[in-house]
Amino acid sequence: MISSNSNPQIKQLIKLQNKSRYRKQEGLFLVEGSKLVAEAAVHGCLQKIYLMESREGREEERVKPLLEQYPYEIVSDEVFLQISDTITPQGVIGLVTMPKYSWESLLEGERKQFVVLDDLRDPGNLGTIMRTAEGAGMSGVILSKESVDLFNPKVVRSTMGSIFRVPYYYSDDLVQVLQQLKEQGITLYATAMEGSVVYDQPDYTTGAAVIIGNEANGVSDKVFAQVDKRIRIPMEGQLESLNAAVSCAIVTYEMARQRRNSLLD
Amino acid sequence: MISSNSNPQIKQLIKLQNKSRYRKQEGLFLVEGSKLVAEAAVHGCLQKIYLMESREGREEERVKPLLEQYPYEIVSDEVFLQISDTITPQGVIGLVTMPKYSWESLLEGERKQFVVLDDLRDPGNLGTIMRTAEGAGMSGVILSKESVDLFNPKVVRSTMGSIFRVPYYYSDDLVQVLQQLKEQGITLYATAMEGSVVYDQPDYTTGAAVIIGNEANGVSDKVFAQVDKRIRIPMEGQLESLNAAVSCAIVTYEMARQRRNSLLD
Repeated sequence: MISSNSNPQIKQLIKLQNKSRYRKQEGLFLVEGSKLVAEAAVHGCLQKIYLMESREGREEERVKPLLEQYPYEIVSDEVFLQISDTITPQGVIGLVTMPKYSWESLLEGERKQFVVLDDLRDPGNLGTIMRTAEGAGMSGVILSKESVDLFNPKVVRSTMGSIFRVPYYYSDDLVQVLQQLKEQGITLYATAMEGSVVYDQPDYTTGAAVIIGNEANGVSDKVFAQVDKRIRIPMEGQLESLNAAVSCAIVTYEMARQRRNSLLD
Repeated sequence: MISSNSNPQIKQLIKLQNKSRYRKQEGLFLVEGSKLVAEAAVHGCLQKIYLMESREGREEERVKPLLEQYPYEIVSDEVFLQISDTITPQGVIGLVTMPKYSWESLLEGERKQFVVLDDLRDPGNLGTIMRTAEGAGMSGVILSKESVDLFNPKVVRSTMGSIFRVPYYYSDDLVQVLQQLKEQGITLYATAMEGSVVYDQPDYTTGAAVIIGNEANGVSDKVFAQVDKRIRIPMEGQLESLNAAVSCAIVTYEMARQRRNSLLD
């Protein structure tokens, strides 16, 4: 059993939990709870399991078989609480390799419907957007490098497992990536207050990317300059804007609705 | 200037920030930041303003005129930080009376489109749902009494002002309220995995209420028993569910879309 903070594994886990740069450098991150640990195993990303001492022998059913297939360590409660990002931990943490997707693999599918995030900052929003992108059947999520880290523990938790299932791509140069999307015949949309077209008017079925901007400042000027069509989500009342994840859900579910209807035609 | 925790006003403010029951008993709550303080004034709910000492004289433009119309106090930074719910406060807090709506007033309008929350627990979700309900033009939001408190500081912040603009009603007996909605000719919908109808199929324009369940357990059995139609939001991938606020957005924006289309017919 590990019961010291100065254990090198524990030092690594704490660093992975807190430092985005270290996660990127190592290509590793942590997931908490039996559901996400099991999901990591299904996707071939699970490296090692850490169990909280007081929960030993009382693992959930989906964790038990994993203990026969993967290396694991028991960690004292005091030390475990320092690794955990939650106040009341479920008692199981997985050390996991990041899923990786090449730019080419993102573009392989027939569907070609994307979400593009231009400096999205809120971890809860990113988690919700990943979850929604899976539900709406998006081909992938493209993020500017200044966007919040997908492997931040709060993001990981709020994806509810979608982090292993939705292809993503971090771009150092979003403008260049947008130009590449356009070369593939993908139309670029961004929501804007002054958007001239209501979001349910364009035909998204021929390839579309919807750009969601930063929570405070919206889509940046340099990105807006690449956009083919500004779309507007009508708002009643005196609202200035919708939540970023809500805007994303409304547009991506309109894409999904059009796909269903085109199959019915 | 107030520079002591034991000042009775400060004691009241801290209690209002932390205790849902006290807020309810007093019919008061706090808002932070110049936008929400100004919004409270517009809606006739602002009682008093508290300014952080180090920000005195540097108030934002929208706060300055309010200082001539409303009583205000300067509070030392140390004490102000104890009242504030944020780590980096904007330096202005408003003491505000809760807007009140009668059951009858909720039903007065022609539109009759509602969101019903069955034990929703997450403050961020409730704030986002209020904001979305305003944008989608809902007649009001009805909450079971076990739902998270609308005047919780995190909820207030994430409503972005909608808290003053969307009629709401807390119900001690949600089943009874649902029966009253049905008597008004309003059809009750709930999202469910096994919902037989895709959410964009029903005609919502004749009066509709969509029920959103608890984040972990969904809609409770006793509430489900009242539902007229189970609707399904199609999900690709292996997703078990969408975020509650996202589900709400998808269905309420479908209601809004149908209203727009019925005007075009």
